[in-house]
Amino acid sequence: MAKLTVSETAAYLRQRDCFAIVTHRRPDGDTLGCAAVLCRGLRQLGKTAHVLENPEITQKYAHLLEGLTKTSVQEGDTVVCVDVAADTMLPECFKGLSFGLRIDHHRGDRSFSEHELVIPTAAACGQIVYDVLTQMGVSLDVPMANALYTAISTDTGCFRYPNTKADTFRVAAACAEVSQDLAMLNQVLFETNSLARLKMQGWMVENARFLCDGQICICPIPLEIEKEIGVKEDDMENISGFPRSIEGVKIAATLRQEGSGKVKLSVRCLPEYDASAICQKFGGGGHRGAAGASMMLPMEEAVEAVIAAMPQL
Amino acid sequence: MAKLTVSETAAYLRQRDCFAIVTHRRPDGDTLGCAAVLCRGLRQLGKTAHVLENPEITQKYAHLLEGLTKTSVQEGDTVVCVDVAADTMLPECFKGLSFGLRIDHHRGDRSFSEHELVIPTAAACGQIVYDVLTQMGVSLDVPMANALYTAISTDTGCFRYPNTKADTFRVAAACAEVSQDLAMLNQVLFETNSLARLKMQGWMVENARFLCDGQICICPIPLEIEKEIGVKEDDMENISGFPRSIEGVKIAATLRQEGSGKVKLSVRCLPEYDASAICQKFGGGGHRGAAGASMMLPMEEAVEAVIAAMPQL
Repeated sequence: MAKLTVSETAAYLRQRDCFAIVTHRRPDGDTLGCAAVLCRGLRQLGKTAHVLENPEITQKYAHLLEGLTKTSVQEGDTVVCVDVAADTMLPECFKGLSFGLRIDHHRGDRSFSEHELVIPTAAACGQIVYDVLTQMGVSLDVPMANALYTAISTDTGCFRYPNTKADTFRVAAACAEVSQDLAMLNQVLFETNSLARLKMQGWMVENARFLCDGQICICPIPLEIEKEIGVKEDDMENISGFPRSIEGVKIAATLRQEGSGKVKLSVRCLPEYDASAICQKFGGGGHRGAAGASMMLPMEEAVEAVIAAMPQL
Repeated sequence: MAKLTVSETAAYLRQRDCFAIVTHRRPDGDTLGCAAVLCRGLRQLGKTAHVLENPEITQKYAHLLEGLTKTSVQEGDTVVCVDVAADTMLPECFKGLSFGLRIDHHRGDRSFSEHELVIPTAAACGQIVYDVLTQMGVSLDVPMANALYTAISTDTGCFRYPNTKADTFRVAAACAEVSQDLAMLNQVLFETNSLARLKMQGWMVENARFLCDGQICICPIPLEIEKEIGVKEDDMENISGFPRSIEGVKIAATLRQEGSGKVKLSVRCLPEYDASAICQKFGGGGHRGAAGASMMLPMEEAVEAVIAAMPQL
């Protein structure tokens, strides 16, 4: 495996004519945005380029790849993957492929591509793709700016996460120079919640238990409440982050019942506390800021156990 | 009144030595961030500068002005107001003052200052203050970068609103070059909600009226509900953006009762609709995406009038 710089990557792409671009499993805004902008950039230079159809693409992102996809690699294609940290991150249908180039901001454990451009300090893979295309003399058009913006905004929580750097804002500025659509993209990507999700949040606020002057929030969600409100799994994505966002809350524990009688615990906390230490007491784990565990207890007993496992604040 | 350019404003400030800086009523991140960064910038150049204590400042922003305030104007002070669109926007205690300079991004109906630098295309007043200070050779330090970031991020909904421009991102990049605190600021400014705010949102979700298959959301908030939940004005900041964030909602109208019997209407909508056209029917105005009006009607009649003013979707 050969490690390339940005300009070596530009040279590598210049020397080839046909490309098949590959995205990762459960494709997000970064991998799909990168694929779209790279594909369009290569086409702008007169190359033949396609993104391979990812069977797991969701509706929210489907517009990015309109007119850019094909179903399989053809003779003579150089296969390039974007934002794919490991071959285990590939959808099944791409696993046998022979990769010419990997562009990524994840370091990755073991290489699965002949060449690699990896810049772990980049907030999003989109920033790296943008640098490569700029080096090649590509100029952004509106669909490219929208795709690039999708890549960098989704991987930085719309510029809120600590990975956001001055360079991230510079790439965003380049997108804003070209496209008038960014506010509309933001609405779709970041400012829309389902009614069921919002009803669930309303229920949680009314039914949460606050301890230690509101510094700890325990939020048990009975299964019948989920059914009554009508939330689907999609509506519950990262729901455990919600009680942590209540002013004054430093540690939040959300408990959800599963049909099997299990209770799923999720803990979120501010940087000075350790969510994984709490979850380890129940055989679970995770990171300092976010961790989880499964508990084989009735809900009320699980709540008492979690309260007992909390640090003294 | 004399209109100044950025470089004329820089010259105006250079020629003077003592400054009292004034912020607007219900001070937000832009007016306070501008005041802090302008005050620190002028001090960096060896000037004497203070921000006049605004009695309405809230806890969230109090840190911005630490060590920068004084209570009243002194002999020889040039009074500069930032982000103050009209003298009616001044807190009572600043109303008699004689203003030397107004820096703003709101056009304003009638002038109340001897000199003005007004750039209506700027997303935040912070961008204009940054341009003036840059012109004067000031360089950002960490507290200035944090104050400037507060100004531009709050006025653009953390870069989500349509007023966000390439220049906004460029100023954000300048802040990110200097400060490591931006992600922490984001948590405080955008990812923390008071319990009262969240209870209000929960109430709104349960009590909103949906029309046209959920594309229009009308949300009347009776004064007694605000009292019962215990929201303060701070908790209600940009509350009218909330119903617009419900999936499928294209136009949202929020109506709040004021003690005087008035109803305050705020309309938010997707780019393809025009909030200001709706509010103009009630003598109000604003932008396409966000507009408002005051209505002298009982709540139920106001709601019916607003429903009648909605476009057919």
